[in-house]
Amino acid sequence: MQTLSVDLGDRSYPIHIGAGLLDRADLILPHLAQKRVAIVTNTTVGPLYLDRLTATLSNAGVEVLPIVLPDGEVYKNWETLNLVFDALLTSRAERKTTLIALGGGVIGDITGYAAASYQRGVPFIQVPTTLLAQVDSSVGGKTGINHPLGKNMIGAFYQPKVVLADTDTLKTLPERELSAGLAEVIKYGLIRDLPFLDWLEANMDKLVARDAGALAYAILRSCENKAEVVAADERESGQRALLNLGHTFGHAIETGMGYGNWLHGEGVSAGTMLAADLSRRMGNITQADVDRIDALFKRANLPTVAPSLGADAYLSYMGVDKKVEAGKMRFVLFRKVGECYVTADAPAGLLRETLMNATGPAQG
Amino acid sequence: MQTLSVDLGDRSYPIHIGAGLLDRADLILPHLAQKRVAIVTNTTVGPLYLDRLTATLSNAGVEVLPIVLPDGEVYKNWETLNLVFDALLTSRAERKTTLIALGGGVIGDITGYAAASYQRGVPFIQVPTTLLAQVDSSVGGKTGINHPLGKNMIGAFYQPKVVLADTDTLKTLPERELSAGLAEVIKYGLIRDLPFLDWLEANMDKLVARDAGALAYAILRSCENKAEVVAADERESGQRALLNLGHTFGHAIETGMGYGNWLHGEGVSAGTMLAADLSRRMGNITQADVDRIDALFKRANLPTVAPSLGADAYLSYMGVDKKVEAGKMRFVLFRKVGECYVTADAPAGLLRETLMNATGPAQG
Repeated sequence: MQTLSVDLGDRSYPIHIGAGLLDRADLILPHLAQKRVAIVTNTTVGPLYLDRLTATLSNAGVEVLPIVLPDGEVYKNWETLNLVFDALLTSRAERKTTLIALGGGVIGDITGYAAASYQRGVPFIQVPTTLLAQVDSSVGGKTGINHPLGKNMIGAFYQPKVVLADTDTLKTLPERELSAGLAEVIKYGLIRDLPFLDWLEANMDKLVARDAGALAYAILRSCENKAEVVAADERESGQRALLNLGHTFGHAIETGMGYGNWLHGEGVSAGTMLAADLSRRMGNITQADVDRIDALFKRANLPTVAPSLGADAYLSYMGVDKKVEAGKMRFVLFRKVGECYVTADAPAGLLRETLMNATGPAQG
Repeated sequence: MQTLSVDLGDRSYPIHIGAGLLDRADLILPHLAQKRVAIVTNTTVGPLYLDRLTATLSNAGVEVLPIVLPDGEVYKNWETLNLVFDALLTSRAERKTTLIALGGGVIGDITGYAAASYQRGVPFIQVPTTLLAQVDSSVGGKTGINHPLGKNMIGAFYQPKVVLADTDTLKTLPERELSAGLAEVIKYGLIRDLPFLDWLEANMDKLVARDAGALAYAILRSCENKAEVVAADERESGQRALLNLGHTFGHAIETGMGYGNWLHGEGVSAGTMLAADLSRRMGNITQADVDRIDALFKRANLPTVAPSLGADAYLSYMGVDKKVEAGKMRFVLFRKVGECYVTADAPAGLLRETLMNATGPAQG
C-alpha cells in the first residue's frame, strides 16, 4: 500500500492506494466520528463489493446502512440524490454519521454532494472502484449532480476524510471504463508531467492489459499530480482549471450525444483532440505533436474524433459550461506537449474551424 | 446606519443596519465580483421592493436578473430551489454572478443554498426584509430547504458577502411576522444577555408599536449576539447550539401542525415555554422565572402554549431533528434566566411530563 496526502490545512486527508483495502477496517475507523455509516453504492458495484465492505465494518462494530442507487450517468440527478436523503432520514442518520461512497465517479459525486448537504454537512469517505474515480473524481472534493441544462451544474466543493483506492476492484472493471479512466491518466501527463507522459507511452500496453504494478504506479502518479494542483487551488480560481483539459469540449460532446451515451473519459479524449487541434491552428504545437497525442489515446482504446454536432451546437453546449466567464469562453490549450495553459482568447475563427473538424458520427 | 462585523477570518463580512439601505448601491458594489446579479425574491416582497433594489443596481451599471418565487414555508423545498437553478442556467449566470436574497427567512435560506450549490458556489448577499431575517436567519450562514421528513434537513453552511438590513422594510411587515421576529430577539436575551432582556421588558411596547429607534437597537443588539456566537462556533459543534433554544420543540410543533401553519418564531415561542417548563421540572428555574418569560412573549403577541400533539408524536417529530446525537436528544435548557446550556441528559420522565403539559389546540 502507498499513501499520499492532499494538503488542505485542517481539511487535509490521506489517499491510500493498494490491493485488498476493502478488508482494512483500520484505514477507516480513525476517520469515523461515530460507529455508524451509510454505504452508498449502485446496482452494478453493490453485488460485487457491498457485502465485503459491510463485513469489514460490521466486524469492527460499525453499524452499516446500505443505500443502493440505480447505475449510470443518467441517474446523476436530483431524484437519485433524494433517494439518499430519504434513506438517511428514514433511518435517522445523524450529523456524525459518515457517508461512504463505494463506486465510480457518479456514486462519488452524488454521495459527496449528499454528505455536503445532509443536515448541512456530514463526514464522508471515498472508496472509488473505477480507474477514473481512483485517479480523478475521488480526489479534490468536487461533488455534484447534473441539471437538464448542464452537467455538474449543482454541487459543492466538499473534501472527503480519506480516500481508499483498492486496486483489486479494477479486475472487474469493463474494458470501456478502464479506457475512460486512462483518458484522465493521460491528461496529467499532457498538462504538467512530461516524464509521466513518456512513462505512459512506454507502459500503455501493460496498463491496457491490467498489469497490477503498472496500474498502481499510474494511479499513484495521477493522484500526486491532482493532489498538488488541488492543494494549490482548491476552488479552481487559477491553475486547477488545467485539470479541465478536454472537458469544455468533452462536456459539449456528452451533452450533445445525450448524458451517458459517451463516457466522461471518452468525451475527455475526443475533447482533448479538439483542444490539440485548436492549439495547432494557433501555432502552439505541431501536427506531429497532435499525432503523438492521438496515438496514445488510440492505444488506450479511446475515441479521438469528436462527433459532428455542428459548430453552432458545440458553441451553444459550451455556453452554459461552468468555465464561462464574463461571456467569454475559457479553454485549456497546449503551450507544448506536457504543458497546458488557460486562456479566454482563443480566436473565434480558429475555434470554428476546429469545431468543423469534428467529423465523427453524431448518432449514438 | 450602524455596521458590525461577523468575524470568520477570510470569510468575515459586514452587517449594515439602518433606514434606506435599499437605495445604497455603494454598500453592494464593493462585494460584486462581476457587474451581474440575480435578485431572488417572492410574490409578496417582490411587488414592494424589487423595482427599487433593481433601480439602485441598474443605475450603478449592474445587470439584474429577477427571480420571483412563490411565498411561504411550504415552498421551501427542492422544487422551488430548482426554479432558481432553472433561471440561472437559462440566463447563463456564471461563477462570478452574485445572488441577492431579497425577502424573509425562507428566501434567504433558499437563495443561500442555491448560491452554495450553483456551479459549486457563487457569491451571495442577504437583504432581509423581515424582522426574523434581520435578527437571525440572514446572519451566520445557515442555508437550506425542508424535506418531507424534516425541516432544514438539506442545506449548507455558506456565508454571505454582506448583509443589508433596511429597517424601512419593517413598516410593511404584517403584525404576526413582526411578533415572530420578536421571538428570536427575546431569545438572545434569554440565552446569554440578561441586560438586553431587561431592556426588552422595558421597551416591548415600543417594539410592538414599531418605534424605529427601538427596532434598530433591538436588531443591532441581536446581530451582535449572533455574530459573537457564530464567530466562536461557525458549524455548531458547541455553543452555537444555544441559538436553538426552543427550536427542537418548535420544529416539532411546526412539523406536527404542518409546515407553514405556525410561523417559525411562533414555534420558537411556544417551544421555549416547553424548554422553560422542563428546566423548572429539573429544578433549574422557578415558576416565577417561567411566568416572567411567558409574560414577555405574550406582550410580543406570541403563543406560549404548545399544541397538544401528544408526547409520542412530539418525541417522534423530535427524533429526526438535526440536534440528535448518538440516539440521545439534545436540548437547550435554562440554567437561569439569561443563561442557557445544552444537554443530552434531560430525564425522560420529566420530558414526558413537559410534553403532556402542551395543551393548546392541535388543529390549525
